[in-house]
Amino acid sequence: MSGRLSRTETWTLLSLSAACFAVLVNTFQGDGEPLIASLVFSGIAFSFTYALIRWLGDTFIRAGLKGRDMCKTRNGEIPETMGAVCAVVYLLAIIIFIPFPFYKDIVAATSGGGNRDLVLEVEHVETGRFLHRFPHSKLASYLSAIITLQAIVLLGIGDDLFDIRWRHKLFIPAFASIPMLTVYFVDFGVTRIVIPTPLRPYLGELFDLGWLYYAYMAAISMFCPNSINILAGINGIEVSQSIVIALLIALNDCLYILQPNQTPPHPALDSHLFSLYLLLPFIGVSLALWYHNWYPAKVFVGDTYCYFAGMVFAVVGILGHFSKTLLLLFIPQILNFLYSAPQLFHLVPCPRHRLPRFNARTGLLEPSVAEFQRPLWRPVATVMKLLHKLRLLRIKTDEKGEVVESTNFTIINLWLVMFGPMREDRLAMGLLAFQTACGLAGLFVRHKLALWVFTQDNL
Amino acid sequence: MSGRLSRTETWTLLSLSAACFAVLVNTFQGDGEPLIASLVFSGIAFSFTYALIRWLGDTFIRAGLKGRDMCKTRNGEIPETMGAVCAVVYLLAIIIFIPFPFYKDIVAATSGGGNRDLVLEVEHVETGRFLHRFPHSKLASYLSAIITLQAIVLLGIGDDLFDIRWRHKLFIPAFASIPMLTVYFVDFGVTRIVIPTPLRPYLGELFDLGWLYYAYMAAISMFCPNSINILAGINGIEVSQSIVIALLIALNDCLYILQPNQTPPHPALDSHLFSLYLLLPFIGVSLALWYHNWYPAKVFVGDTYCYFAGMVFAVVGILGHFSKTLLLLFIPQILNFLYSAPQLFHLVPCPRHRLPRFNARTGLLEPSVAEFQRPLWRPVATVMKLLHKLRLLRIKTDEKGEVVESTNFTIINLWLVMFGPMREDRLAMGLLAFQTACGLAGLFVRHKLALWVFTQDNL
Repeated sequence: MSGRLSRTETWTLLSLSAACFAVLVNTFQGDGEPLIASLVFSGIAFSFTYALIRWLGDTFIRAGLKGRDMCKTRNGEIPETMGAVCAVVYLLAIIIFIPFPFYKDIVAATSGGGNRDLVLEVEHVETGRFLHRFPHSKLASYLSAIITLQAIVLLGIGDDLFDIRWRHKLFIPAFASIPMLTVYFVDFGVTRIVIPTPLRPYLGELFDLGWLYYAYMAAISMFCPNSINILAGINGIEVSQSIVIALLIALNDCLYILQPNQTPPHPALDSHLFSLYLLLPFIGVSLALWYHNWYPAKVFVGDTYCYFAGMVFAVVGILGHFSKTLLLLFIPQILNFLYSAPQLFHLVPCPRHRLPRFNARTGLLEPSVAEFQRPLWRPVATVMKLLHKLRLLRIKTDEKGEVVESTNFTIINLWLVMFGPMREDRLAMGLLAFQTACGLAGLFVRHKLALWVFTQDNL
Repeated sequence: MSGRLSRTETWTLLSLSAACFAVLVNTFQGDGEPLIASLVFSGIAFSFTYALIRWLGDTFIRAGLKGRDMCKTRNGEIPETMGAVCAVVYLLAIIIFIPFPFYKDIVAATSGGGNRDLVLEVEHVETGRFLHRFPHSKLASYLSAIITLQAIVLLGIGDDLFDIRWRHKLFIPAFASIPMLTVYFVDFGVTRIVIPTPLRPYLGELFDLGWLYYAYMAAISMFCPNSINILAGINGIEVSQSIVIALLIALNDCLYILQPNQTPPHPALDSHLFSLYLLLPFIGVSLALWYHNWYPAKVFVGDTYCYFAGMVFAVVGILGHFSKTLLLLFIPQILNFLYSAPQLFHLVPCPRHRLPRFNARTGLLEPSVAEFQRPLWRPVATVMKLLHKLRLLRIKTDEKGEVVESTNFTIINLWLVMFGPMREDRLAMGLLAFQTACGLAGLFVRHKLALWVFTQDNL
């Protein structure tokens, strides 16, 4: 990859940025609408990320942040950890964005005039939901989200630099979630949950989970980043799944925000604005990374990106109080985690890498396999044989009936077992279609069928 | 350096940590005094940093973060960028510390009882200065400090990894200060300054600097980190000067905090508590680094540490509203900057490294020199000759009277020019004594002589 932008790229990015700046200046003259500003920031963030990924490629390679693509015939070294560029641009964007939703006097300050006028305008800001501004008190929670995201990037870069061991890696997101949980403790401290209708006779309508609620939030923070990190290994899959999830959460947010004017406004509106303000720039920087990471990849994303993306979702889910809905969008990741469990918990030996095997002759990917020197534990072997019959695994047995080899336990390999060898991009597209379908079904269940177990959909 | 702690070290650190935990548990049973908690966190942070620096040394070397000591006879490779370890432990400490000064209901929640009791206690918290708690509204400014410090660490590590060019480096702290300035803009927006008495007839008592105030804050944020980064290069100097400055700021804070009970409490009390809460853990982690970085150094601190330390000072100075006092503690750094200016601005050619030259025969440090291929600009040469006569520089001239060589323009070299060659640790101690003396004099001027130019000392 040349480190320079082509003339077309340069002009496209410049035009996009210029258009964004123009819109931004316009929001200042109007009422400083934060949602438009957020879109604009996302456009600018896209342009910056796109250009920086290109410019910094060689620098990263020189600093030793580089890797080889195992699924290509020609595999020169390409830059690794490019997710860090994404993340830094993203952080800068959401930091500079702070005044838009939070500055309480922005209208008052520009109203230029008399006391009466000023009071009126300030009232507008405080009650006028159409401005999509937040109560100033939510600033701390927005800031805690930034700290947590910055922390995960810092720790993610540490992981990419030092190749931290797998069992330590798992806890990186837990450390990063500490700022968010601490501020949650100081600022809200709400640890009650709504009980589903069938259980109410036993537990009451609300139930105070106490410190268990913090454990639950920490678990969500650990699950999202790690589950994206293990559904990885082929070109573009990490970024694409993140973009799909982000778009689905944004869709869910829009269901709340685009409602016809309610008075009083929907109580969850703030949470979903919060979520959009964090997601739109994320989608911006991710698209720029996607362009460079899609088959055939010109850069790798690094663990940093997986952690960072997962943490963005965890943060919006937790601070936006829709973590259960969030999990509905992680169905493929949950399936992958469950399917991976035998290897993750060492019931079945787990090789260092589980990405599919590249067949250089056909140019297609095939399921990769783990070979077993010693006989497996009898019940595990029996289950594996059953899965083999169901075409959910492919095993080889020796003459004694012992399992000597099986495909690795990831849904990426499972996809190849089920649908046969295919090219890397077709494999990624298949998995993405699955991700999208599961997510849409999840949202449908969430909004249409939730009434079965709760007294009201909070939409 | 062996990567393991000796038995004595292990037991000392364990005892220190245990004692700290015991005190911490005790503060919970009492009134949760944040100042004691902060001291305790500093002790724990010291122990963690000390152990981690030792344990991670080899990992850093393997990851390529290593360097050679140019001022030693035997110069094997030792770990570099160890300031990053410091900084990460520090960040974790100040994040976990958040609930202590800010949690508004901590007493109410543990008072275990009746309404009356509860109201009384909450009142205590809100008005009871003896608890050293903050109004909850200050949380955003504390969080913005954390974001800024995290940002400088992130960018500092980027610098250490990618060896960013000098003219770009200068702006790293400016980027990192954006979160602090943004939240300042959203949260306070106070941009007025008190005018010194002699100027009041012309400017009034208060003067609104407007956006210039933000430029001033950005300038402070750029000056502190960079000025520490250029007063560097010999074992222990970066950490020691930072510890001296931190102790002097803490001394100044104590002047406000340890006053006999005032009613109402001193208006600047909050600011100085804020400053102490950020400084005490900084002193803790820095002492652990100092132990390993002092002559003969077993680890290097990296640019990360210099940026991080400088930014801690900038943050407490700016958010604590005592940035002018802060500058009084940076006198050696200011002198070094002024003295360096001819080389920084390329009036005189500047070599890549300006640290003193090690004379392997004597084991002493001598001033390093820059050699000039081309004749210098006449006025510059004249000034240099004058400085030479004043013994503030040492130059060599050729037969035509052209300056062909001069000592490098740093006060480290100047010290060697003035007092002759000396061993590395004596040089560092001399500079530290100078730093301490200047700082104490600065604080004396601040509190005893400020009345000459302001109507009241705010002590």
